[in-house]
Amino acid sequence: MIRLALRALCALASIAPVGAAAQDPAHPPHHTFELADFPLELGATLRDGTLLYVTHGTLNAARSNAVLVPSWYGGNHHGYDFLIGPGRALDTDDYFVIVTEMFGSGGSSSPSTAGLTHTSFPAVTIRDNVEATRRLVMEHFGITHLRAIVGFSMGAQQAFQWAVSHPDFMDVIVPIAGTAKTYPHGIVRLESALTLITRDPSLLAGHDTLSTAGTRAWSLHWSAWTRSTEWWRMELFGTADTPTVESLIERAERRSPNFRPHDNVVQGRAWQMHDVGDTPGFGGDVERALASIRAHVLYLPGQTDMYFPITDAEYERRFLRDVDFRPIPSVWGHMAGSGPTPEERRFLNEAIGDALAR
Amino acid sequence: MIRLALRALCALASIAPVGAAAQDPAHPPHHTFELADFPLELGATLRDGTLLYVTHGTLNAARSNAVLVPSWYGGNHHGYDFLIGPGRALDTDDYFVIVTEMFGSGGSSSPSTAGLTHTSFPAVTIRDNVEATRRLVMEHFGITHLRAIVGFSMGAQQAFQWAVSHPDFMDVIVPIAGTAKTYPHGIVRLESALTLITRDPSLLAGHDTLSTAGTRAWSLHWSAWTRSTEWWRMELFGTADTPTVESLIERAERRSPNFRPHDNVVQGRAWQMHDVGDTPGFGGDVERALASIRAHVLYLPGQTDMYFPITDAEYERRFLRDVDFRPIPSVWGHMAGSGPTPEERRFLNEAIGDALAR
Repeated sequence: MIRLALRALCALASIAPVGAAAQDPAHPPHHTFELADFPLELGATLRDGTLLYVTHGTLNAARSNAVLVPSWYGGNHHGYDFLIGPGRALDTDDYFVIVTEMFGSGGSSSPSTAGLTHTSFPAVTIRDNVEATRRLVMEHFGITHLRAIVGFSMGAQQAFQWAVSHPDFMDVIVPIAGTAKTYPHGIVRLESALTLITRDPSLLAGHDTLSTAGTRAWSLHWSAWTRSTEWWRMELFGTADTPTVESLIERAERRSPNFRPHDNVVQGRAWQMHDVGDTPGFGGDVERALASIRAHVLYLPGQTDMYFPITDAEYERRFLRDVDFRPIPSVWGHMAGSGPTPEERRFLNEAIGDALAR
Repeated sequence: MIRLALRALCALASIAPVGAAAQDPAHPPHHTFELADFPLELGATLRDGTLLYVTHGTLNAARSNAVLVPSWYGGNHHGYDFLIGPGRALDTDDYFVIVTEMFGSGGSSSPSTAGLTHTSFPAVTIRDNVEATRRLVMEHFGITHLRAIVGFSMGAQQAFQWAVSHPDFMDVIVPIAGTAKTYPHGIVRLESALTLITRDPSLLAGHDTLSTAGTRAWSLHWSAWTRSTEWWRMELFGTADTPTVESLIERAERRSPNFRPHDNVVQGRAWQMHDVGDTPGFGGDVERALASIRAHVLYLPGQTDMYFPITDAEYERRFLRDVDFRPIPSVWGHMAGSGPTPEERRFLNEAIGDALAR
């Protein structure tokens, strides 16, 4: 019964309006940081830009205990709940944890919040997300130094970008299952997904939902890429809803009410474009940009990740001066970094807890 | 003049009608084996079934020097040319090499040869391909024992099936970058491609070419899966036609005149369905089926293959009684097994040559 009540509470909270004053520490109120007209890296201006964020714990008087945790592709601020709270890596008795949502999340400025499409909404980059977050951290909280930045996937891209753009701003970055650059495979792989939205006949006809065929192809694409082949061989996909591969395939064409295709394209483009080497001053040289990082890097690639493969992470570690490289031992592919089972959650909490205790 | 005449002959042979008597050893004449009304595993009958094949070398009087080489997904009999000829693994001074094309190749019975679609053409399986090939080998050539069966990808699936269905028929099988079963990842991954054909609006409207959007998505899908992520990071994709990732993406929507979407679905379904465990007598048990193999197995998985991942091959090797397991050291992903560069061609020729010399 308790479990049922808790589940009902979660379901409710997840659709709570921005700013709702929830008292449950697991559901902190949503805050909005106003960016007004925000100049973007590629030249356009984001009109009335907003950043959605939540906080956990208390900022100390010295403003020295803040940890920033930026969201990932398609994710919201709840993605990191398994790392946050008493006894966890981001212990709220010690740290003030700020969790931000990316542009395109549907919480921060996005096509869906602006009533725009992926073509009429301006292109945003990882560096735009970092700059917006920097303004929140400095202007709103008066914080000039972060203890750490912890991020999974596109959150890891943001952590790397912070460390290149503002090398003295943090002691530690923790990129989880994410690299400092999207290598050509990532660009092509993402294009093979994004084209299912950008060329969808239903979307091109002005609707804001994909065709059934497009929904099916999109869903199957992500199914095949997010977990490892070993995860599939071990048949870890079985759930009450999809006990078999056939049922999983059949279910692929059911639309999710939370799917906002235009938002997915805006975030996907930011992912494709990312390269810390393009930070001003590095002339496209990812190796030199990585070598400029002064923070300690706890690098946590997924052992079986097909998005940000461990070979890319192994390449990048060679240029980092202060790195602790700990692959997540898991068959969960990319999802390993999101803490899918108690094993990954324990590994991530221990590794991040150790790095923060240094 | 001689060279010019030879080239003209080659050009002719490659478009020569079935049975043309070309003299160039690199372009052996196409032969057709008539299967008449061929009963299929799933219950239907293939009307006027045909198998396209070519031969290299000479069958000896004892009929003991034959090697069978079955084709792969989307491939034709030329796919194995790098292994065949004097001084190569399948040395035509020693061996009589029979190269067959699968159902759905566009050479053997296929929707495109029968004027049918992927829904009106009957579903064929790997076991159907093996049975048709067995009839060719026994009925046409009078061969009751093969020195070896060598196959890449879906050709490897056929080699494994032969060894389970007819355990004393060959001395050696050489599965290259292919496994004895399509594990759930393969089924879902292939479905994410096949759905781009089966749900394409142009095809559904009765045309036999995909929409531009479908062509683009199909092409990008295969781009992202066939080579390894490391291959992409090393930027090995650059060609005169596609020097950049952007040009490669742009080119994805250009239709290939050789693309026969209905044939691709028929072959893809055979790939998805395959499991040697489903051979009569094994009750779906892939491990028991593998353990029944009596041939020597030279197992050559691709070190970086995302289609038939090395983890699946490592699982299967545990059940083989007589196996030499040699991963192909290559960043070419699945394509490593097709001999993309001199390094893979040398590795494959040496490994297969050794196994045949045993």
